Amino acid sequence: MTEYLDWRKEDFPFHTRVETRWGDNDMLGHLNNVVYNRLIETVVVRFTMGPLDIDWQRDPCYPIVIESLCRFHQQLSFPETVTACLRAGRTGGSSVTYEIAIFGEDNERPASTGHFVHVFVNKETQSSMPIPEAYRKVIEAYQR
Amino acid sequence: MTEYLDWRKEDFPFHTRVETRWGDNDMLGHLNNVVYNRLIETVVVRFTMGPLDIDWQRDPCYPIVIESLCRFHQQLSFPETVTACLRAGRTGGSSVTYEIAIFGEDNERPASTGHFVHVFVNKETQSSMPIPEAYRKVIEAYQR
Amino acid sequence: MTEYLDWRKEDFPFHTRVETRWGDNDMLGHLNNVVYNRLIETVVVRFTMGPLDIDWQRDPCYPIVIESLCRFHQQLSFPETVTACLRAGRTGGSSVTYEIAIFGEDNERPASTGHFVHVFVNKETQSSMPIPEAYRKVIEAYQR
Amino acid sequence: MTEYLDWRKEDFPFHTRVETRWGDNDMLGHLNNVVYNRLIETVVVRFTMGPLDIDWQRDPCYPIVIESLCRFHQQLSFPETVTACLRAGRTGGSSVTYEIAIFGEDNERPASTGHFVHVFVNKETQSSMPIPEAYRKVIEAYQR
Repeated sequence: MTEYLDWRKEDFPFHTRVETRWGDNDMLGHLNNVVYNRLIETVVVRFTMGPLDIDWQRDPCYPIVIESLCRFHQQLSFPETVTACLRAGRTGGSSVTYEIAIFGEDNERPASTGHFVHVFVNKETQSSMPIPEAYRKVIEAYQR
Repeated sequence: MTEYLDWRKEDFPFHTRVETRWGDNDMLGHLNNVVYNRLIETVVVRFTMGPLDIDWQRDPCYPIVIESLCRFHQQLSFPETVTACLRAGRTGGSSVTYEIAIFGEDNERPASTGHFVHVFVNKETQSSMPIPEAYRKVIEAYQR
Repeated sequence: MTEYLDWRKEDFPFHTRVETRWGDNDMLGHLNNVVYNRLIETVVVRFTMGPLDIDWQRDPCYPIVIESLCRFHQQLSFPETVTACLRAGRTGGSSVTYEIAIFGEDNERPASTGHFVHVFVNKETQSSMPIPEAYRKVIEAYQR
Repeated sequence: MTEYLDWRKEDFPFHTRVETRWGDNDMLGHLNNVVYNRLIETVVVRFTMGPLDIDWQRDPCYPIVIESLCRFHQQLSFPETVTACLRAGRTGGSSVTYEIAIFGEDNERPASTGHFVHVFVNKETQSSMPIPEAYRKVIEAYQR
């Protein structure tokens, strides 16, 4: 049930370090909960702009988010730099679920875990379409 | 499975209207996905500060979030004012799951649905504790 | 030099109430300084979309900001709703300086004052152009 | 009058690189104007936590902002990483004006310039106090 507490960095093929900002902490002195969603978005965006090489302005097909889940295990705080990790999970005809784990500095246990589900849509019609083959190959290379 | 698509405002006992801001739209011209989490947080905060009457500065016991889920059904955009709705769902010894639905202007179907799970903690120790009875009574009054 | 400390709501012809959000407070327990800039932007955007009736998507000419100034006189905090006030100040050929004052609840002295300078540009070329006459008339009606 | 357009990185003794985030772009496709204020805050915070070594939680005296100015010269956009530069300008008994310039990638001209004025206050009383000598020495070392 809670096997995500055992997720470790080495279980994820895509890592990125993300700076926090002063204003990310809220009045309780820790990263505001919504900032975790920003961190999740950041690792997904870096994956899509990096390995997937998607250009939202140019490409006729791009992914949009249909679901995001965030679990909070430990508190993170500015000014630490966190490591956000991603792997591709379940991949359907049009959609892919990215599994995400966020680690604080010098901590091997995840401070946060969750997922982010993308569905590929036609830019003009905004209706879902099959994941283009070039993207699917990259996504599968990041499954674990 | 997807019965949340049928959620309607009248299924929720707590409603609040939330203004959007120019900067909430991202470069795709709609509310950035993370802003939906901000809207979810807003309705939960208004519920906890309103009916629950929690004061994070003063009270020895307060809730912290342990999980948030957001599903995206329709796009919302600044400058619309949205209606965020909440009801209490499953309530355990220390935790409560709020079910949330967000409605755009003049739309009876939810643009977003999700949940937000609070666990009550002792302010000093940050360890979980039973939901205080006064809070539990209020929470149960908002179950549907 | 500091006559802006004497600015009062009645000195401004355009008023708007702006909700604050939980995450607007930073770890010092007050609105983060950058949030004041968000409040200033909000009153300017509401003026341009309201009385000026500018549509950034449609219009061939729109204003962009070239300077913003914010002075901090008193601390504001979530959950208060603030009142942001605007008047048109110096108006040049292509640019207009909006003077802004922000008031906390039940306080006649401004918590913040400042200005926001817009220059009108051609949407295609992004070069400055004379303020269209229809806009100029509205702007002059809001000078004090 | 506009000599700030000639500011160059080498005119500033303190530099820091700041990542931008997807949500920093607004619907016009560039960094939202308020994000420039966030960048200005970031370089000031890094200076105060770095060379000045201020700890907001611990120290009995800390600086609060009383004025910020931001001029917009060129548009910046996610995903670029910007360089934010700071030098100490006019220093009074209790206050210091930091001059700021922000540079886009591969651009020697500033995209934005401005200032940020800190006044040192007693944490308990929130009234202004002379800049502690240890801080003043550091600040003077960063004047140009």
